[in-house]
Amino acid sequence: MLIPQSLAYAMLAGMPAETGLYASILPLVAYALLGTSRTLSVGPVAVVSLMTATAVGQVAEPGSAEYLTAAIALALLSGLMLLAMGALRFGFLANFLSHPVVAGFITASGFIIALSQLRHLLGIDGHGDTLPALLGSLLHNLADWNPVTLGTGIATLLFLFWGRSGMQPLLERLGLPTGAASIFARAGPVLVILATTAASFLGNFADRGVDLVGDVPRGLPSLALPSFDLQLWSELAVAALLISIIGFVESVSVGRTLAAKRRQRIDPDQELVALGAANVASAVSAGFPVTGGFSRSVVNFDAGARTPAASLLAAGGIALAALFFTPILFYLPKATLAATIIVAVISLIDLRIIRRAWEYSLSDFVAVATTIIATLVLGVELGVLAGIIASLVLHLYKTSRPHIAVVGAVAGTEHFRNVQRHNVITHPNILSLRVDESLYFANAGYLEEYVYRFIADNDQLEHVILQCTAVNEIDMSALEALEAIDHRLREQGLTLNLSEVKGPVMDNLKKTDFLEHLSGRVFLTHHQAVKSLKQDDIEPYII
Amino acid sequence: MLIPQSLAYAMLAGMPAETGLYASILPLVAYALLGTSRTLSVGPVAVVSLMTATAVGQVAEPGSAEYLTAAIALALLSGLMLLAMGALRFGFLANFLSHPVVAGFITASGFIIALSQLRHLLGIDGHGDTLPALLGSLLHNLADWNPVTLGTGIATLLFLFWGRSGMQPLLERLGLPTGAASIFARAGPVLVILATTAASFLGNFADRGVDLVGDVPRGLPSLALPSFDLQLWSELAVAALLISIIGFVESVSVGRTLAAKRRQRIDPDQELVALGAANVASAVSAGFPVTGGFSRSVVNFDAGARTPAASLLAAGGIALAALFFTPILFYLPKATLAATIIVAVISLIDLRIIRRAWEYSLSDFVAVATTIIATLVLGVELGVLAGIIASLVLHLYKTSRPHIAVVGAVAGTEHFRNVQRHNVITHPNILSLRVDESLYFANAGYLEEYVYRFIADNDQLEHVILQCTAVNEIDMSALEALEAIDHRLREQGLTLNLSEVKGPVMDNLKKTDFLEHLSGRVFLTHHQAVKSLKQDDIEPYII
Repeated sequence: MLIPQSLAYAMLAGMPAETGLYASILPLVAYALLGTSRTLSVGPVAVVSLMTATAVGQVAEPGSAEYLTAAIALALLSGLMLLAMGALRFGFLANFLSHPVVAGFITASGFIIALSQLRHLLGIDGHGDTLPALLGSLLHNLADWNPVTLGTGIATLLFLFWGRSGMQPLLERLGLPTGAASIFARAGPVLVILATTAASFLGNFADRGVDLVGDVPRGLPSLALPSFDLQLWSELAVAALLISIIGFVESVSVGRTLAAKRRQRIDPDQELVALGAANVASAVSAGFPVTGGFSRSVVNFDAGARTPAASLLAAGGIALAALFFTPILFYLPKATLAATIIVAVISLIDLRIIRRAWEYSLSDFVAVATTIIATLVLGVELGVLAGIIASLVLHLYKTSRPHIAVVGAVAGTEHFRNVQRHNVITHPNILSLRVDESLYFANAGYLEEYVYRFIADNDQLEHVILQCTAVNEIDMSALEALEAIDHRLREQGLTLNLSEVKGPVMDNLKKTDFLEHLSGRVFLTHHQAVKSLKQDDIEPYII
Repeated sequence: MLIPQSLAYAMLAGMPAETGLYASILPLVAYALLGTSRTLSVGPVAVVSLMTATAVGQVAEPGSAEYLTAAIALALLSGLMLLAMGALRFGFLANFLSHPVVAGFITASGFIIALSQLRHLLGIDGHGDTLPALLGSLLHNLADWNPVTLGTGIATLLFLFWGRSGMQPLLERLGLPTGAASIFARAGPVLVILATTAASFLGNFADRGVDLVGDVPRGLPSLALPSFDLQLWSELAVAALLISIIGFVESVSVGRTLAAKRRQRIDPDQELVALGAANVASAVSAGFPVTGGFSRSVVNFDAGARTPAASLLAAGGIALAALFFTPILFYLPKATLAATIIVAVISLIDLRIIRRAWEYSLSDFVAVATTIIATLVLGVELGVLAGIIASLVLHLYKTSRPHIAVVGAVAGTEHFRNVQRHNVITHPNILSLRVDESLYFANAGYLEEYVYRFIADNDQLEHVILQCTAVNEIDMSALEALEAIDHRLREQGLTLNLSEVKGPVMDNLKKTDFLEHLSGRVFLTHHQAVKSLKQDDIEPYII
């Protein structure tokens, strides 16, 4: 069942069909030997194939020998980058791709992939890396549509959609045991390939203007060192890095999902090494960039694969196919493969993420919207970059304007809560502030301005206490700001006090002379601070 | 006293001397009308002049008409960018330059500036934007040194250094009143200019191979629209942005320091507008990029300037100088100006920042070291970029591996503290974790792995409680992680509980169905959580 997928994604990547098979043999073996997931299946996947087509299309003409060379170089470069990141234990990098960015990117890529396959379904020309370019190109050539191609494509599409849900119940009603019915239902893609190949051969589709896969060389890939062309490498470097990161994130999230179901664990740093080796293996066997894919792995998982031997078996099967069955692919209409891709990627498109992000928080919504729009309008590379940058900038912007609450005591307890949310007791000579963020360079100035604004409005104030329960770090810039605040308060006859400072933060402050010069004191609990600083002759406010 | 500085920084920027005066007239007026600091003085400053020389030197030959055009375009571009940032209220952007990055950048720039002036002191050729290039070029040409030039330079240097500390006491001992002695001592730069100009005229330095300032056109700048050359603009865009940001940060920090001394306030967003207008004013009067400088402002401040009128007066004085005194500048040796620059920038060099950062924290040290090394080796533009990126990445790296403490109750109180730092009571069936960081995409995976590792090692566990005092945000990616943790715990017969969740975080969680499906409960305080979940028939541990 991996064979139709491999052929289809080779077509998506703009590569000859046989390279899809090549990219599914050695990489599978390399991952099986080095990877930490027992069920992950590595090979061509939709999003990475689209990114390959985009990147290689910028440096070479599709169909040319240079295109092949560049795709192989891209796989090698991406493999080497993954190996280097693994050696440096950079697995944590995957964490910088937030969930909204990944979900948005995959959804937008799914759109572009589905749209890019319409040309094969219609039998027309139509290229473009972005939504507007693709749409324009398709509309421009729409008049050339071929009825036989479109008929084949639509029949395949309908059969595959129906096969997903309708085939198994039907087969069971026809008397097949559940197990066999399930296998037949899953074999849908293989069945349509056999059926449309037969139709194409018998109906002489070639003479009716239907694009066929054509001659696919029989045999295994000859191993060869890819070209070391520095000029080409530097042109492909950024794309290789993005493919590496996206491929890694996709693979790890598939691996984690499957591992969690069997209470297994995967090690991200080792996964980098395994995926790196898989891509290098793809490059030396004339393949293109690969990664762990969801649908291919699920097949593996459902088939009960519990050891990497299942992958070795699958690799053997694909090798046999490459050796013996490629001639029958000659008559396979490209429309069939296009329909296979469309059905596969439609499951990637998840528009609910937009709605969920909108309901959850503005910043998650902005991240997902930026990623989707940038990917559709600017293409996959700029799209994922825009998403990463947007989520980082949003995070920094949020932490640069931290939530600062004025707190008071909850009557009868030692707990302090926001005066705007709870009924609490405050004292007119004390300002208790809880800063809900680590203090670092991006928000140091904000805290300074906030405190100054407050003391300007309050004449009765004598003490400011910063409750540091949520302050996990005070960096040098923030220390400067605290020194400036302390200095200013002292000049105006006030004191600055800290309470509930965490161990690691306190350790750092003790390395400086800040605590020696502090106008006030450091208290273990905020309760102690207020008890010792309040004036007993003045009635507390009860808010 | 602003005149020698203006001439010197024009030389540093690679511009004709008169443009230094031009850049000190209209910009001063523009800032005085729009700025929020009453004492800040705007004009050419050392670091921005160096950045101008670097940026313009990349697109035009020093001394050519194109060089002038490009410097004017740079001022205009930088002015427009500042105005745009002001209109968008982007003043908060200044916060992203951390204290170590700014201090390291200014120190490294000071080194490069001082070194770049050695050529004028020695009377040799020597150019370069980086430390290695500069040193190499100077050493290569060292043999051409001119004794008269070097003598003038060293005499000026010694006089200026002595003048800073030794002159005022001497004058007072000679019987001058303190006030007059102070004025004379401050006039040191003016005195050396007059003295060396006289020496040069009388000693016929021109014939002895000493580089003189030469012909400086008399009169005021003619106002003109700068060239709108899109090609040139795009080449200068990145440099203009960096100059805008560095100039803004420098100006705001000078302004804040001075304002704090008089308990005044400055408004960063309005400062952006004022500096933008000042740069546009510089561009239309044939000047180069300007900003608020420390030494020029201190003169203003010490002179008792309390209103913007002081700046208008200064602008008038410089205009008079441009009208009438430029002819005497003909004989001024460039070595004098170089010595003036060196004395000024040596006060910028602050190597203690390296030591302080080293003692305070590794990440601050890495930020300052990266900035200094990158600035010296790669030049000012890449240096400041490297510093900004390094401090952002370090911050993200730190928050991606948050401090997570296992906590227990302090006996007799409702407070919970880290088991590794305090004697606390824990219960074998409860795992209490305090996460010292907001939960967001960069650390969501880390938390997941941390919890899984813990539960794998503890058979007696029944409940996990996350104490959320320091969790200021839970974004969508973190919510996914919490859902995954909850799912996994439930599968293993454990519950996930939250305590002390903050108001804004709780508001967000309530928008989802997370709380409905949660295996455990949400408690107002950690004490309540432990009290309700502990098993009374099992003895607690006391650590």
